[in-house]
Amino acid sequence: MEKNKIPYKIYLPEEEIPKKWLNLKAFMKEQHDPFLNPATLKPCTKDDLRPVFCDKVIDQELNCTDKYIDIPEGIRDFYKMYRPAPLVRAYELEKALGTPAEIYYKFEGNNTSGSHKLNSAVAQAYYAKEQGITSLTTETGAGQWGTALSMACAFYGIDLKVYMVKVSSEQKPYRKEVMRTYGAEVIPSPSETTKVGRAILKEHPNTGGSLGCAISEAIEVATSTPDCRYVLGSVLDHVTLHQSVIGLEAKAALDKYGVQPDIVIGCAGGGSNLAGLIAPFMAEKLEGKNNIEFIAVEPASCPSLTRGVYAYDFCDTGKTTPLARMYTLGSGFLPSPNHAGGLRYHGMSPILSKLYHDGYMTARSVEQTKVFEVAEMFARCEGILPAPESSHAIRVAVDEALKCKETGEHKKILFGLTGTGYFDMSAYKAFNDKTMNDFIPTDADLKEGFKSLPDIPQNAGVRG
Amino acid sequence: MEKNKIPYKIYLPEEEIPKKWLNLKAFMKEQHDPFLNPATLKPCTKDDLRPVFCDKVIDQELNCTDKYIDIPEGIRDFYKMYRPAPLVRAYELEKALGTPAEIYYKFEGNNTSGSHKLNSAVAQAYYAKEQGITSLTTETGAGQWGTALSMACAFYGIDLKVYMVKVSSEQKPYRKEVMRTYGAEVIPSPSETTKVGRAILKEHPNTGGSLGCAISEAIEVATSTPDCRYVLGSVLDHVTLHQSVIGLEAKAALDKYGVQPDIVIGCAGGGSNLAGLIAPFMAEKLEGKNNIEFIAVEPASCPSLTRGVYAYDFCDTGKTTPLARMYTLGSGFLPSPNHAGGLRYHGMSPILSKLYHDGYMTARSVEQTKVFEVAEMFARCEGILPAPESSHAIRVAVDEALKCKETGEHKKILFGLTGTGYFDMSAYKAFNDKTMNDFIPTDADLKEGFKSLPDIPQNAGVRG
Repeated sequence: MEKNKIPYKIYLPEEEIPKKWLNLKAFMKEQHDPFLNPATLKPCTKDDLRPVFCDKVIDQELNCTDKYIDIPEGIRDFYKMYRPAPLVRAYELEKALGTPAEIYYKFEGNNTSGSHKLNSAVAQAYYAKEQGITSLTTETGAGQWGTALSMACAFYGIDLKVYMVKVSSEQKPYRKEVMRTYGAEVIPSPSETTKVGRAILKEHPNTGGSLGCAISEAIEVATSTPDCRYVLGSVLDHVTLHQSVIGLEAKAALDKYGVQPDIVIGCAGGGSNLAGLIAPFMAEKLEGKNNIEFIAVEPASCPSLTRGVYAYDFCDTGKTTPLARMYTLGSGFLPSPNHAGGLRYHGMSPILSKLYHDGYMTARSVEQTKVFEVAEMFARCEGILPAPESSHAIRVAVDEALKCKETGEHKKILFGLTGTGYFDMSAYKAFNDKTMNDFIPTDADLKEGFKSLPDIPQNAGVRG
Repeated sequence: MEKNKIPYKIYLPEEEIPKKWLNLKAFMKEQHDPFLNPATLKPCTKDDLRPVFCDKVIDQELNCTDKYIDIPEGIRDFYKMYRPAPLVRAYELEKALGTPAEIYYKFEGNNTSGSHKLNSAVAQAYYAKEQGITSLTTETGAGQWGTALSMACAFYGIDLKVYMVKVSSEQKPYRKEVMRTYGAEVIPSPSETTKVGRAILKEHPNTGGSLGCAISEAIEVATSTPDCRYVLGSVLDHVTLHQSVIGLEAKAALDKYGVQPDIVIGCAGGGSNLAGLIAPFMAEKLEGKNNIEFIAVEPASCPSLTRGVYAYDFCDTGKTTPLARMYTLGSGFLPSPNHAGGLRYHGMSPILSKLYHDGYMTARSVEQTKVFEVAEMFARCEGILPAPESSHAIRVAVDEALKCKETGEHKKILFGLTGTGYFDMSAYKAFNDKTMNDFIPTDADLKEGFKSLPDIPQNAGVRG
């Protein structure tokens, strides 16, 4: 019986936690366009980035040649506390759907941050410590990234200031409390602690804040404090590098049972979890060794891949960062308030954007009521309460499995279950109470967002 | 290097999930005194219990002879979705304490209910289904048990009504929402849905409810509805039987590395997790094969073992259940509002009470501020945010490890980490804000509680 062959959960032994990250860029025939300094429109140099980021992650950010990069022992020791994460065969979901497809998911929610975010937080905090950095700053919206970095900083003994979007810190007091328990200072943003915060408060005293503003405050503190740096939890190439542990473990687990997926699916906000999940599979595809279908899933309310443009844009709404060429809705695009805070980002990882642009992966957008339908179903049959973000991937995995039911195809589907929804019960409440709505931007809404794209030569022809 | 020998986490392979539960009673030289029917003061028969509980669990409740009891395949299939639970070597905690002791913990929080409660919920729901029962009722306070049973009922397709202590359902709306997501009907208790609820509301219209009242409502519905039964999440012998998977897995994992613990520690509210953790180790002790020290840890605010009496008492404050001989503070004892809802129970598992009474285990009570001190420390170095209940065990494990630091002893300490604290952040907030107080009942408080003990011959000499 096959059921006896492949267990419900495959846990790799501890010694098989990856010893190297996979640097997907080194497998790509063409690199994504370089980050540009917005003042000069010239490619960013290491020196441009040094005041903001730690040296080691800048090296990783700009490394396009090394296919594998060593994971230091000090990072692996932390990884051992919560990794390897299980690769799960969704027997009960398959049964509930009555599908001939095999469904697998890599579950990254079995740690206190509740998501994959810890994989990069640990790495970035470790490198900061190694460089003699004594404090870090970051921003957080929904709170998973802030929690992950708090845990990492507590472990390595680094002070941390988290600028948390004010409206989130008010809606999620318990998220804030988890970060405090891990020793972080959580500051609702905008705040009186920075120049940019004070200026915004003067102009908009009642604002609930935004990620863009929180980023600007965190960068201001990092660049004006001795031995302090800023860290980011998604989008950038070094973050996707760290997240490759997801895919490497998933592939190693499947290889043990001779399973090669036909489809790999992940949700995509900034894109780091998806880039991490697909890394080793995509590397093989780029080498012509497989023909796997890769699907990025995004909310219909914030459809950067499916309805955005491929253009140079700022990574933050405050327009303080370097310019990245990526699929974007414009840094001025304001997504409607959907219930997947982690997917409400105007842009997309430059690596994923390039792969998508070059035809190596596809993308779909889904409406949140359809997402919560499968989230609830998944919770009831697989016993894990999924995060709203992760449930976007479940939606498409279920859709594909149902297609197999019609066609009789025996496809093997792998998706990333990035996290748990314990701190998202207000979203489930809206679904249970049937007060949840879908938000789909009109073409006019999108056009308005594209107006915020920087007016630079490289963008000629793509601005709305 | 020893560090390379024993991994951070030992996961048993799936096929090593126990195939049988261990029935500790069958190893005990003397049984605990029988449950009594309060009307006749005669031992409860199966027929007394049949209107309330499912037949199979009544058989298990009264089984004192079979040392091992088969776990049906249908239960093991559910177990496979979240078990085996990891046995963790607390390398980072040892390092932080600078102790020569080895510290191990069995982590039961890696499932959506957030605790060990699921182990018995699955079994009880399975047996209900097998018997043709179509609906179940239960009560819940803090909500972990209610969540666990909701998950089990969703899986086996059984309707569930959860009577949730009204004040808890108001304080923890998100806990309630998790249960709703798993399809349970959650009713704040006291309610208008039962006779007993209506009577209480008439007398005390503004009451916040109590576990005792919620139990009474749940039993009333179970006994007055066709094909409906009531289920309990702790205290009773069949619940401790189901929880033996904790200890069996822990022992199997340690045996693989030749580790025999010197001390086994667990928190104790109703006692089921502790009874489950110690089961195989205690069975060996009862056979004269080891001399392990077993320590039950309870809150100083609700010290049933350390300051209670060994007497016949009701299991609920409403005085509707059979009488159990156990360590108790009296069913009328009102523990001060501490932050470990799962440990605020006036009595203690009859099996554990008997073992304690006969000198096979010891008990300690700890104050909650001391508990949260180590909870925070543990979270920061081990990366898991522990439940307040579980943190009672951490407190004593740390105390023992620090003793080893003084004496230089190389003891091996095992404790049960029963669950996570994601829904207990208001407690952590009180600790972080330094507004948490300790509550220690005075002798007069205890005397008041003992007055509620039933005035029956068996209690002569122990009533306060």
